[in-house]
Amino acid sequence: MSKIKVGFLGLGNRGRCMLTTIVKCFENVEIVAVCDPYIERAEEGVEIVRVFGKYEPAMTLNSDEVIARDDIDVVMIFTSWEAHVDLAVQAMRAGKKVAMEVGGAYSLHDCNRLIDAYHETGIHVMMLENACYCDTELAVLKMVREGLFGEIVHCEGGYMHDLRDEVAGGNKNKHYRLRNYLNRNCENYPTHEFGPIAKVLNINHGNRILSLSSFASKARGLKEFVNSHAEDYPELVGRDFRQGDIITTVITCADGATVVLNLDTTLPRTYSRKFTVRGTKGSFYEDMNSVYIDEPGAHERDAKSYWDSAKEYVKKYRHPLWDKYEEIARTSGHDGVDFMVLGAFFESVEKGVTPPIDIYDTVTWMAITPLSEKSIALGGAPVDFPDFTGGKWILPREKSDLEFTLDW
Amino acid sequence: MSKIKVGFLGLGNRGRCMLTTIVKCFENVEIVAVCDPYIERAEEGVEIVRVFGKYEPAMTLNSDEVIARDDIDVVMIFTSWEAHVDLAVQAMRAGKKVAMEVGGAYSLHDCNRLIDAYHETGIHVMMLENACYCDTELAVLKMVREGLFGEIVHCEGGYMHDLRDEVAGGNKNKHYRLRNYLNRNCENYPTHEFGPIAKVLNINHGNRILSLSSFASKARGLKEFVNSHAEDYPELVGRDFRQGDIITTVITCADGATVVLNLDTTLPRTYSRKFTVRGTKGSFYEDMNSVYIDEPGAHERDAKSYWDSAKEYVKKYRHPLWDKYEEIARTSGHDGVDFMVLGAFFESVEKGVTPPIDIYDTVTWMAITPLSEKSIALGGAPVDFPDFTGGKWILPREKSDLEFTLDW
Repeated sequence: MSKIKVGFLGLGNRGRCMLTTIVKCFENVEIVAVCDPYIERAEEGVEIVRVFGKYEPAMTLNSDEVIARDDIDVVMIFTSWEAHVDLAVQAMRAGKKVAMEVGGAYSLHDCNRLIDAYHETGIHVMMLENACYCDTELAVLKMVREGLFGEIVHCEGGYMHDLRDEVAGGNKNKHYRLRNYLNRNCENYPTHEFGPIAKVLNINHGNRILSLSSFASKARGLKEFVNSHAEDYPELVGRDFRQGDIITTVITCADGATVVLNLDTTLPRTYSRKFTVRGTKGSFYEDMNSVYIDEPGAHERDAKSYWDSAKEYVKKYRHPLWDKYEEIARTSGHDGVDFMVLGAFFESVEKGVTPPIDIYDTVTWMAITPLSEKSIALGGAPVDFPDFTGGKWILPREKSDLEFTLDW
Repeated sequence: MSKIKVGFLGLGNRGRCMLTTIVKCFENVEIVAVCDPYIERAEEGVEIVRVFGKYEPAMTLNSDEVIARDDIDVVMIFTSWEAHVDLAVQAMRAGKKVAMEVGGAYSLHDCNRLIDAYHETGIHVMMLENACYCDTELAVLKMVREGLFGEIVHCEGGYMHDLRDEVAGGNKNKHYRLRNYLNRNCENYPTHEFGPIAKVLNINHGNRILSLSSFASKARGLKEFVNSHAEDYPELVGRDFRQGDIITTVITCADGATVVLNLDTTLPRTYSRKFTVRGTKGSFYEDMNSVYIDEPGAHERDAKSYWDSAKEYVKKYRHPLWDKYEEIARTSGHDGVDFMVLGAFFESVEKGVTPPIDIYDTVTWMAITPLSEKSIALGGAPVDFPDFTGGKWILPREKSDLEFTLDW
């Protein structure tokens, strides 16, 4: 079988990590060209391929040159958030399949541009939402599909990650988060938590988001952080950040389920995606790593007695992907999920089929960002959520026999 | 000192429990009359006073007779939610101080009636919000006041209690919850979680609620419960309940803090009030019983390593009330907090001063219910929150030297 030929865009931290995983783990993939506007990063990309792949990719500072090449099948995008949609649309129009790192959209118009390009070209785009492939998230999805929790009524999730030094260090590290936190106030990173929830709730497959409301707390965490580390961030001392510390987003769905999302990245805390699934027969709570099943006497026990009870369930409901690929996956980033999501993308490319996270998933998850920005600007007014599927959301989910499917 | 003379209204489960605590623990209080429209309950009230107090109170089925007595100082109200405001206003107009069991209001008008009666009579009303006196909640309030968490940015709380058999058994137990769950869709019980949060955020003392938005999930828990226990609840089989399983309420405050509340009483779960306080230097999380303090290396540890870390902080920041009264308090209901909140009320009566949970606290906390009902009916539209203080919220909190104060 001929190799999948990749043009690789964006070699910041995230790009280099994913490039390394591809070159080390996927023998059926060839990196034809690497690209970053910063020459030292582009050179690091070449070096990664040279060291781990023992071959030499082309290198350029100009993404147009990569996308125009006729010797690539696929464009993979790991640039700053702002460039994702432009590059994806350009690649689709050039006939290249697209894998895109996660990130929210900047406008609904951007989401519609992706959908329009898909309708015009038939080219698939997959958002590389690795959290969907987490051992725990996959096992919980299996519990849901097998009815362990009964009918699902409510879910919660969050991107809860103390990013204060990453954001404040943005100038040094050329990190796009800094300019976003200075200038915007929104749920800027919704997909890690919402992706797995969307799969649990069959969003776009028998269910859809009807409306969204977002609320921002005051913005104090970053300001206090830079002021108390003035020597490290002299250019930020005294600056105000627009981005509220805690963004709470409430989503209502066509089937009557509600979802609460949190962006929580500028106060001191431990990491969590707060994945929570509530049903009529039981629940899963990431923060306590607990599974609670309705059974006689259950609710007389205290919450603490359920701490860590999910451990055995996650083993029992483990997705076969994790048994098969755990060893190689764990050599990749984010404890194995980078391997898994890349495997899903490459499988769909090789088989020429719709990826497990398709264009409709991608734009639906990305649209949360501009809609949250709008709702916050309107004082928490509910905003209606577009139906990107043009009514096809009402069709039930179809099972797929892809190895990396999320629809079994 | 002469005794505090009490007319006691409402002898359901809750009333009997509180009456027992009063008679057993407060020698400075005399129960002059007990009242319940159900004679067997009224008789149980008499029996409680006879057994634990060795004296005989008057008994009546008619609350008007109690309120009209000129040998009582105080009316204590433990009736169904619907009767709280009518009885409180009637008692105030009759010159009796009022203690009122917790519960949401049914309309903003009811809140204003209480405020009007207070302005006309100068009579104090205290909501007996026992959660404010919990060992943990008091210690967390102390941590906040001493600056352990820095500036407070966001709080969460919930009334999360599997009440399915209490609600469904309402017909048998004459419980007012059933008719509420059949007919209303709102945050029907906000004060257990919001009371302690209001104290943390200085609501009505330098801060106020600006707006509130509420969202209801579908209502499935009770329906599935009664249908699968058809023999126990034949009259409810097939009925629809209006009350959504999970109500999410988002509150925005004048100082820029946000609050998220959940009512979560009709799905299987363990008990929690989800008390969560987030600041620029640290946090408290009831569900994990953890205190997280910003310090070098803290955020590299995983969340699990903080589970139960609150234990030592709650000891260190313990309110002196708990050291002094723990032994006697633990003989009362709800692990001691019933004693504490009653102690607070009786202290304020004896000293003739404003109670630690005053009329403005009481109506503010109760107003969440009708406003959440309105917001849900309007599809989650934000509704503005009245300023019951007439602008006096802008004055800072004053310290009080009451023994049971919440303002030290």
